[in-house]
Amino acid sequence: MREGQVIERLRRIASAPEARGLVDDVAVLDGLVVTHDTIVEGVHFFPFDPPASVGWKLAAVNLSDIAAKGAKPAGALLSLTISGGGDWEMEFLNGLEAACESYRLPLIGGDTVGLPERAPRVLGLTVLARASGVVPSRATAQPGDNLWLVGTVGDAAAGLAQLRDDSRASGALVEVYRRPVPQLAAGEALAPVAHAMMDVSDGLLLDTLRMAQASGCTANIDLAALPLSAAFIAERGQSVEQRIFAATGGDDYALLAALPAETDPLSLSLPSGTTIARVGTMTAGSPDVRLTDGVVPIRLPEVLGFEHRGNPASPVADRP
Amino acid sequence: MREGQVIERLRRIASAPEARGLVDDVAVLDGLVVTHDTIVEGVHFFPFDPPASVGWKLAAVNLSDIAAKGAKPAGALLSLTISGGGDWEMEFLNGLEAACESYRLPLIGGDTVGLPERAPRVLGLTVLARASGVVPSRATAQPGDNLWLVGTVGDAAAGLAQLRDDSRASGALVEVYRRPVPQLAAGEALAPVAHAMMDVSDGLLLDTLRMAQASGCTANIDLAALPLSAAFIAERGQSVEQRIFAATGGDDYALLAALPAETDPLSLSLPSGTTIARVGTMTAGSPDVRLTDGVVPIRLPEVLGFEHRGNPASPVADRP
Repeated sequence: MREGQVIERLRRIASAPEARGLVDDVAVLDGLVVTHDTIVEGVHFFPFDPPASVGWKLAAVNLSDIAAKGAKPAGALLSLTISGGGDWEMEFLNGLEAACESYRLPLIGGDTVGLPERAPRVLGLTVLARASGVVPSRATAQPGDNLWLVGTVGDAAAGLAQLRDDSRASGALVEVYRRPVPQLAAGEALAPVAHAMMDVSDGLLLDTLRMAQASGCTANIDLAALPLSAAFIAERGQSVEQRIFAATGGDDYALLAALPAETDPLSLSLPSGTTIARVGTMTAGSPDVRLTDGVVPIRLPEVLGFEHRGNPASPVADRP
Repeated sequence: MREGQVIERLRRIASAPEARGLVDDVAVLDGLVVTHDTIVEGVHFFPFDPPASVGWKLAAVNLSDIAAKGAKPAGALLSLTISGGGDWEMEFLNGLEAACESYRLPLIGGDTVGLPERAPRVLGLTVLARASGVVPSRATAQPGDNLWLVGTVGDAAAGLAQLRDDSRASGALVEVYRRPVPQLAAGEALAPVAHAMMDVSDGLLLDTLRMAQASGCTANIDLAALPLSAAFIAERGQSVEQRIFAATGGDDYALLAALPAETDPLSLSLPSGTTIARVGTMTAGSPDVRLTDGVVPIRLPEVLGFEHRGNPASPVADRP
């Protein structure tokens, strides 16, 4: 028995159309877009991470799913385990509240539960958001679409690598890993024109493969076009090897949008300062990802991202 | 720092009207009633409980909150930890699916996460339901109302006591503890006429106190009027002591409704076989519970129910 079988079983249970086959990170019910993410201490975050950053991140990763559907945050329900004296949880709530205030996400309910001693914390958040018209699926990209990426990739993975080397690491990359920024405004601007959209949380190549598989197209990604941040380049350079690292690292919370070829997203009202880059195309063909560096074909790496589950950034080497 | 402070902090964050002050077990957003319950292995269920019963119960306890608001189940998001080989989880899903099918609750989303080795399972469910008109609060009972109870009390606590004595115990009471039945149809029938309604999950006396405090009335409960099941009476008798046990045991998932004196719920279209009893009244006065056995005043027991958190039935003696 493997986890994959459990997930297959879940898919068979979730046969209602609102579930979107459990492949779209969100459900859509009565005009509301609903998503839930759970994070586990020692799996998705380090025990030594500042609790406020864990609270921020839990909100941000859910809001990233909402951003990819062009929806407006409407309410959140928190599942909060409480252990020890509660100090950790109070700091966690500071970070959660900061994210909720930043993105106008009212906390409207949830549950608090105690934990047996020494049990790892498990934190869940359900976010409800109001759809603003179309809710783009990941399954409706079309041959001829351009693939656009909002945000940079690789920063969070680079920050995570720094933390693995030294738990006291700090700086811009660690900050991106700990406090991702959901691309809500960009998502809202792109949703009406996107054929397909999803957030990039498990690694660009893996998430692109998922869009290609769901849509029945071939995705072509040009590593040379990847938007890398100055901090990433300063830390790791921009060799092909590092670009592959960035394209498979995960935890980016960027947006991947398949737009019709004639659509220029720069003509849309994106927030000023939005990083957006055309990183590839969809073409007719087998549902797969093909990789180039400019025009030079590159062999696809063995690992495209975090396959294991929806919420990827495992800080521990031997994830369960 | 105590758990109470964490919950107070949550209340201050959850200032939006949809949150209902976090005192009503549910949020109400755009016509949807939304609730979330989380259960923890070793806290809310025994490691030796049949996994299918845990799945059933997780759905049922959420649906009980929905029942108390007279709403119709519309969708659920599951947060599922996966540990070991996955066999436990497959059985858990069998029970969850059975409850979802019984109460027409489509599973529409959620998240699966791995756990570190030997970590207790933590299972969460968010349920969305469509409000059918009024969504009764617990805070609007009025002096002069009669307090009606749908369902019996004490069975689950009696079943839990049997399991604590012998983990192989079985029978009707254990079954009620493990597979509670949400009173959805009765809740829907009562919601339009109820001044206030809530589900009884933490003990009748404690939940009645909560309604009294939220409504600013005195609740008067007559122990002699408590509906006890034949199985309960066969196991424990019906002495005042046992009635107090039943009124404080928790995990009943009965409904407590404050109805205007002139309303006879037996004239409503309750499902056939519904157990409903007038167990008390609301009167003007301090927000408290007063207890009688018939006309004889009874001193309120020191412990009114499970104070610790929303989801009460801790199978372990020393809950965190």
